[in-house]
Amino acid sequence: MTDIYDLIIIGGGPAGITAGIYAARKKLKTLIISKDFQGQVKFAVSVENYPGLQNTTGIELAKKFEEHLKEQEIEIINGEAVKIKKENQFFEIITNKEKRYISFSIIIASGADPRPLEVEGEKEFIGRGVTYCTTCDAPLFKNKTVVVIGGGNSGVTAAIELTNYANKVYLMEFMPELAADELEQEKAKSNEKITILTSCALKKIEGNNFVERIIYEDLKSKEKKTLKVDGVFVSVGTQPATSFIKELVDFNEKDEIIVDPKTCETKSAGLFAAGDVTDVMFNQIVIAAGEGAKAALCVYDYLKKNKQ
Amino acid sequence: MTDIYDLIIIGGGPAGITAGIYAARKKLKTLIISKDFQGQVKFAVSVENYPGLQNTTGIELAKKFEEHLKEQEIEIINGEAVKIKKENQFFEIITNKEKRYISFSIIIASGADPRPLEVEGEKEFIGRGVTYCTTCDAPLFKNKTVVVIGGGNSGVTAAIELTNYANKVYLMEFMPELAADELEQEKAKSNEKITILTSCALKKIEGNNFVERIIYEDLKSKEKKTLKVDGVFVSVGTQPATSFIKELVDFNEKDEIIVDPKTCETKSAGLFAAGDVTDVMFNQIVIAAGEGAKAALCVYDYLKKNKQ
Repeated sequence: MTDIYDLIIIGGGPAGITAGIYAARKKLKTLIISKDFQGQVKFAVSVENYPGLQNTTGIELAKKFEEHLKEQEIEIINGEAVKIKKENQFFEIITNKEKRYISFSIIIASGADPRPLEVEGEKEFIGRGVTYCTTCDAPLFKNKTVVVIGGGNSGVTAAIELTNYANKVYLMEFMPELAADELEQEKAKSNEKITILTSCALKKIEGNNFVERIIYEDLKSKEKKTLKVDGVFVSVGTQPATSFIKELVDFNEKDEIIVDPKTCETKSAGLFAAGDVTDVMFNQIVIAAGEGAKAALCVYDYLKKNKQ
Repeated sequence: MTDIYDLIIIGGGPAGITAGIYAARKKLKTLIISKDFQGQVKFAVSVENYPGLQNTTGIELAKKFEEHLKEQEIEIINGEAVKIKKENQFFEIITNKEKRYISFSIIIASGADPRPLEVEGEKEFIGRGVTYCTTCDAPLFKNKTVVVIGGGNSGVTAAIELTNYANKVYLMEFMPELAADELEQEKAKSNEKITILTSCALKKIEGNNFVERIIYEDLKSKEKKTLKVDGVFVSVGTQPATSFIKELVDFNEKDEIIVDPKTCETKSAGLFAAGDVTDVMFNQIVIAAGEGAKAALCVYDYLKKNKQ
């Protein structure tokens, strides 16, 4: 007979890991299904706002989270959920490896993936100059010219990080102003290697084997312009990773799972969600971690009342 | 003329500090008013559930939070708020040192204080055997006999910690079962120095200069019993620290400030609250930190729209 878990957590980013730590301390029979233990964190070049750990990197922080989780008595499997079904009080999860797991409760903490630009040439040049991960790929662009698309926190910190490798970094933002924290904006503006282009919309990525140039529109003058670049770092936000669940939960207009913000409950009893995959207002590491803790403690209360 | 702050944060626990870090990174002109930089954290003997920092102590974690905060460009004053008034779009805060500060917005993150038992002898013996802080006072009870009142996480971890000093530790809980995490319960149950007394209600603390004994009722047999102890460690939860605010916010039945759980807003525009002082469901360090981040980011949005 298949084991029945008290709780299955889908995702190993800050929300999933924190939920795992809390569940293990409550001695819930818990399984985490995750493709890695990094979530969006790995895309963060530098993390300066996770309280208690000043000036760390995304990868370093992800490693600390993972170590903390692995100290707990908890089962971990590498994989991706592809389907969730509910029958009576039980949830059944099918993974991409065609395994099947049964549980009394679920926390969806599958986070978010980088949002693509959806411009011509983007897909074609992925891995050949187009990238979504500065931390991973910045060193490949030593002495090159690159453009970062997106003026939020992640785009601006990516541009700053890239100046350690590239000769020239363009930072392109669709809106008239950058959206990053003022502190990060100041760092970017005072960096001689960075040129900021606001009110500019990327239209096309071109090249032969590798990216060679981009075509963009200056939204003020309406002119089409060409920029010679060797790399395009895409940093235009995220989209929630929810392909495995269609029923059982409600979504908002951004495709985020709607939860009760006090309890992380979805509309299905026993099914909870936490972190960037939900309609929580901000995608921040410490907020996702807090939501993961909440979800696990609410699962504990739920099981006390409902597990028979 | 008095400076006008963008934001004043009341309290320097995990919620207040995280709000401070986020506000500083948004370059808000921010003041933190706090009597210390520990909040409830200092009462935690050991902290094993703050993600990324395994096996730390409350005091160690509080120190890391404080250091992180002090790296930011932010004003900090030592004091306590005694009154908050609102006039038009401005808040005025008066402190116990009779200073007056003006701000466009406020985050109340004053946390919670230990809840007293309200039994005979408690007040009389504070500092003479009755204590609310295990971390602070455990070493004073070397080779003594002590009782911990309260079987939640903090009480159970306190009892375990006390076995490092005391010869004998009683752990008394009003309910028929301990409420602590199962992991902590197991540690306590397997510790030879600890005797667990459930369904027992403390009635009276007695002694001469110093605590000498307690009188309690065994709720099953209805018998009154006496226990010779040298110390009473009180750990029966907390009460929100809200003496300085009566109007401007609504309270729930536990005297916690009611906030919108998505935004940390109170019923007064520009007045936010985060962490243990609010009706958030769980008083946990990582949850309070997450709520502090949320509140600061919502303040930032509020100021963008409302500061003129």
